Amino acid sequence: MANLQEVSSNKIFGGYQKVYSHESTELKCVMRFAVYLPPAAETGKVPVLYWLSGLTCTEQNFITKAGVQKYASELGLIIVAPDTSPRGIGIQGEDDSYDFGTGAGFYVDATQDKWKNNYRMYSYVTRENPGMFRSVSAFAPICNPIKCPWGQKAFTGYLGTDTQMWEQYDATSLIAKYSGPSLELFVDQGKEDNFLSDGQLLPDRLMEACTVNKVPIILRMQEGYDHSYYFIATFIEDHVRHHAKFLKV
Amino acid sequence: MANLQEVSSNKIFGGYQKVYSHESTELKCVMRFAVYLPPAAETGKVPVLYWLSGLTCTEQNFITKAGVQKYASELGLIIVAPDTSPRGIGIQGEDDSYDFGTGAGFYVDATQDKWKNNYRMYSYVTRENPGMFRSVSAFAPICNPIKCPWGQKAFTGYLGTDTQMWEQYDATSLIAKYSGPSLELFVDQGKEDNFLSDGQLLPDRLMEACTVNKVPIILRMQEGYDHSYYFIATFIEDHVRHHAKFLKV
Repeated sequence: MANLQEVSSNKIFGGYQKVYSHESTELKCVMRFAVYLPPAAETGKVPVLYWLSGLTCTEQNFITKAGVQKYASELGLIIVAPDTSPRGIGIQGEDDSYDFGTGAGFYVDATQDKWKNNYRMYSYVTRENPGMFRSVSAFAPICNPIKCPWGQKAFTGYLGTDTQMWEQYDATSLIAKYSGPSLELFVDQGKEDNFLSDGQLLPDRLMEACTVNKVPIILRMQEGYDHSYYFIATFIEDHVRHHAKFLKV
Repeated sequence: MANLQEVSSNKIFGGYQKVYSHESTELKCVMRFAVYLPPAAETGKVPVLYWLSGLTCTEQNFITKAGVQKYASELGLIIVAPDTSPRGIGIQGEDDSYDFGTGAGFYVDATQDKWKNNYRMYSYVTRENPGMFRSVSAFAPICNPIKCPWGQKAFTGYLGTDTQMWEQYDATSLIAKYSGPSLELFVDQGKEDNFLSDGQLLPDRLMEACTVNKVPIILRMQEGYDHSYYFIATFIEDHVRHHAKFLKV
């Protein structure tokens, strides 16, 4: 983390919501990320929960709208929320779409010439923010990007046309052949989410892959909820408690 | 409420966060306001809590950042959050400041020619959103606007130079001569709020007026908190429970 600088610091629920900037070696640009430090972090070691935001977001959306700090304070968890795409690179066309470029990095390491120097969000969140992951959950995720328009656009752009390459970043494909440590997936999905009916999210395919490969999954289809942060704020407590259970062993 | 139209509706904590637009007769423009409808509102009458935002805000800040819906859902309260200033009027200079014009209406009925036709926020929130008020609380309020730079700028602009006129909108002056029904004020103030040290908020003067006139007040000076929505999110639960106590009699 070269040139780590504090951008802001605000007290909330007894802890501090901070935002830092740093020069990212993976992305070759200055990036921001948010960290919530609960009161328990002042006196001892506490586990870390990573929040990865989706299309159109920065590090700000989650920390201002989800109400997560109340539960992180109570349960003694640090929350790290990185930004979602490289910033200020100036690649031609990077600002043109809400679902590609600065609108959405998709957490892949790009292989295509135009993007491969900077669009390395997979390595950024798994290597430059190193951590051992014990559990995972998601809100309204793109479960099977190789089969939906958002994913096909992004993977063609970042990874090229060899669809074999795409599967390493496709949750449904990965679960279908998963044989690692025992894992319990937890997914909340709003039934009134317009991207669900548009066929962008495809939770049924993830569910099917889990069933076939006997990976435990809790998929909750939430009546009346949409794709907004109002949906996330409603159920964030359940997700934080789920992770605390695995992180506090 | 002429031409009431639903702008958005999102399910959160079992209820619905809605935003409406309407043609305001007081302000002579199209205004937006937010309403949270808790699940209990589907089956019976429930009390209403009004949230009035401050400088630079619209109806959006509170409903997206404060986390209030969880408690309004639990306690069965409707939350109404109006916008803070007339919109789209086109008065020369209305967009020039963060603390005047569209940046801040100050909840007064303007008397000065340039503003008096539209800047009638006092009547808008007390008459066009009619309600019987049983309790009141505030976060980091401008307690004594006639004695601070923000208030003096706004009142000179909206009300003119006759400082006698200003006292009807000054909480400290009003409390000093208050003789109405019994009232318990509740105020939270962050100690690290830069506007506190700048002399814009002056809670000591409100406290003193309450003490002299024997009006009960709870003023909590919160160690380490600033003027942001992180501060509000931390203590909003206490405020909602305070009002529920008075509203649910």
